Amino acid sequence: MLKIAMLSTGEEVLHGDIVDTNAAWLSQLFFESGYSLTKRSTVGDEKSSLVEELVMLSFNSDIVIVNGGLGPTSDDLSAEAAALAAETDLVECSEWVERLKAFFAARGVNMPASNMKQAMLPRGSTMVDNPVGTACGFKVTINDCCFYFTPGVPSEFKRMIESEILPDMRKHFPIESGMDCSKLHTFGTSESALSDKLDKVELPEGYFLGYRSYIPYIEVKLFGPKGDVDRRVKLLQIIYKLIAEHVVSVDESMQQHVAHLMLEKKLSISTAEQSTHGSLSKWLHFDEAAAQFCGHGWVLSSQVDVGQEEGDSLAAAFALAAAFALAGATKEKCGTDLSIVTGHVSDSTFSVAIASKEGEWGQTLTFGRKYSRDDQTLVITTVAADMLRRYFAGQAMFPTYSSLKRVKEMFVPQSAIQG
Amino acid sequence: MLKIAMLSTGEEVLHGDIVDTNAAWLSQLFFESGYSLTKRSTVGDEKSSLVEELVMLSFNSDIVIVNGGLGPTSDDLSAEAAALAAETDLVECSEWVERLKAFFAARGVNMPASNMKQAMLPRGSTMVDNPVGTACGFKVTINDCCFYFTPGVPSEFKRMIESEILPDMRKHFPIESGMDCSKLHTFGTSESALSDKLDKVELPEGYFLGYRSYIPYIEVKLFGPKGDVDRRVKLLQIIYKLIAEHVVSVDESMQQHVAHLMLEKKLSISTAEQSTHGSLSKWLHFDEAAAQFCGHGWVLSSQVDVGQEEGDSLAAAFALAAAFALAGATKEKCGTDLSIVTGHVSDSTFSVAIASKEGEWGQTLTFGRKYSRDDQTLVITTVAADMLRRYFAGQAMFPTYSSLKRVKEMFVPQSAIQG
Repeated sequence: MLKIAMLSTGEEVLHGDIVDTNAAWLSQLFFESGYSLTKRSTVGDEKSSLVEELVMLSFNSDIVIVNGGLGPTSDDLSAEAAALAAETDLVECSEWVERLKAFFAARGVNMPASNMKQAMLPRGSTMVDNPVGTACGFKVTINDCCFYFTPGVPSEFKRMIESEILPDMRKHFPIESGMDCSKLHTFGTSESALSDKLDKVELPEGYFLGYRSYIPYIEVKLFGPKGDVDRRVKLLQIIYKLIAEHVVSVDESMQQHVAHLMLEKKLSISTAEQSTHGSLSKWLHFDEAAAQFCGHGWVLSSQVDVGQEEGDSLAAAFALAAAFALAGATKEKCGTDLSIVTGHVSDSTFSVAIASKEGEWGQTLTFGRKYSRDDQTLVITTVAADMLRRYFAGQAMFPTYSSLKRVKEMFVPQSAIQG
Repeated sequence: MLKIAMLSTGEEVLHGDIVDTNAAWLSQLFFESGYSLTKRSTVGDEKSSLVEELVMLSFNSDIVIVNGGLGPTSDDLSAEAAALAAETDLVECSEWVERLKAFFAARGVNMPASNMKQAMLPRGSTMVDNPVGTACGFKVTINDCCFYFTPGVPSEFKRMIESEILPDMRKHFPIESGMDCSKLHTFGTSESALSDKLDKVELPEGYFLGYRSYIPYIEVKLFGPKGDVDRRVKLLQIIYKLIAEHVVSVDESMQQHVAHLMLEKKLSISTAEQSTHGSLSKWLHFDEAAAQFCGHGWVLSSQVDVGQEEGDSLAAAFALAAAFALAGATKEKCGTDLSIVTGHVSDSTFSVAIASKEGEWGQTLTFGRKYSRDDQTLVITTVAADMLRRYFAGQAMFPTYSSLKRVKEMFVPQSAIQG
């Protein structure tokens, strides 16, 4: 089996100033691509520790991905450390010098002297392209181990891994088969409730379930052999049925899924937010194409007096009735097909409502656990978006939420509103 | 200098199913306590890799914190691996057996057989208390290196580190002093431009600079000896002066800083967003106390027709003049002291404007590099928020932004608007 390691560098990663999301991202991608990491490590910017770790990894690994330390400043030492570990020197990569010059020329700026450092690569290494930044990567062999050096900026790192390094690894280190992973995104339930329901599913050899929890979602992941499509689809259907009440999307994020529904249904949507400060509007604008169906949005302040005319219907709007009224008024005022409202939070209780041509649905919920202010906003936004999803999908509007208690729910058909 | 390493264990950490927040937390705490980590590593649950890594770390470190693998299930192998690495066996820790029995008795539950495993510790090790869980920690010496084994559950881990392990380290590995780190957050410049300016600063022994770049900010960090306050303040002033044009906050985030300014100035603020979809409103609501000064916000759609009355002044509002008009109209309609507007993005060009009692400032900018849609929104939001910050701070409104090109800028005093 291939031994693959990742080395993250930089004082800010080592000392915990930033969480190493590049490492988590790479681990997951490699795992799903069949190149499971066997080890990860992190060292700071000190040259001697870097060289020591590179040499140590070279003896114990077949492939090492090194991340960070390719910037223009004096604390970026990865290329120099690589040269020392490979017992060679740094030479100028003329191709990258040209690219740097072009990069700055296109911006009408003189190239800062410090950037020249980024074109100095260990002798014998191969440049790895970075179309979106000034730090090129490189590939170099140390003690028979293949090292790929990559920039720390997440967008540059991810692009280089996906479009340069993974294809190169597939060419030079072919693997028989990887794993496939299907993901069911759930909202409003708990990991133990999910696993209690799914524990009874008998999985064939080579298949297993994983869970990943991050507010406000829990992902259920089905791992299994690559290419085994028919069996995978059947298993997914079984799993889906058991937890359908809380599944918000399959193999795409909830935001992507809702965007697809918006494009399919072609209904315009306005919003009025009393507790989510623009978060719901931003959520609905996630996809550029679907955003065309977003009508106007209002972020309502509870602190500044609202104008007399519209004030009465908005004031003290923490009650369900007020959310209802606001949803109807917003829909009418914006002339959209739908409108969604998030009401004030008061005493850990909030209301959300959606108005449509069929009528209005609204519910009042209480937080069942302590959330931070940001997480509260996220949960309210997701409940509101989930009502939109349920409306589009024709699903029951009021599921059981494990960490939210429903105080009230109401549906008023359009005929009753007009009458 | 003490060489201190941390080893995280577990497939779910190695394969990126969970981000290793324990590691980031420990790194930061240790750094601030003067016990900087020199290295971090992660391996999976395989016994041989665990033993190999423990032995390797024992040769290169003085202290190692091992996290995870102390649970009751069969894939929890840390104690066994520790015994193998120390070339000894596991023995029952009678003190912990008693604690486990009491733990389950207090809950009126029989102790599951699997939990007995958690009281089996390497011979010669010392138990480390865990008052909140069933996994005790332990301290054991392997090849003259001091290992502390800790549970993976974050709350148990953190408590054990803070109340047991850190005090024990202070007793057995006393240190002279820790490091302090001051952070200057900058917006609108590049890492190389910053370092070109700061390279000439002569830093006293023990001080050094670090950079951390993440859209849309670059942090400049001044590291130095703990407690050396006078010198640190002087150095910070020198550094600040050299890069003042782009510093948005010192030792707090830009959002925290702007929130403090909002609380100090007590001016109400409304927003109208054509390109940022609620992102600016959300940004300004960051701090709960400061959010009281947020008036209403509008998220304007370019796709759905706007009402006739207000439509004319909003339509085709990608020009600076339109942003100006919208800022004035929003301020007046919402009755706030200030209003901020983000105009449409067209051809990578956008306008932002702020209206105040002194008059209106507006600027049109073009993106100098390719941003994702999300990053565009983030950059526009930050430029708009930076105008608010500059207004509050009485700073020049139109700095040079390295990755944004200014097409137009305009200031119209209130007298001209009213006249």
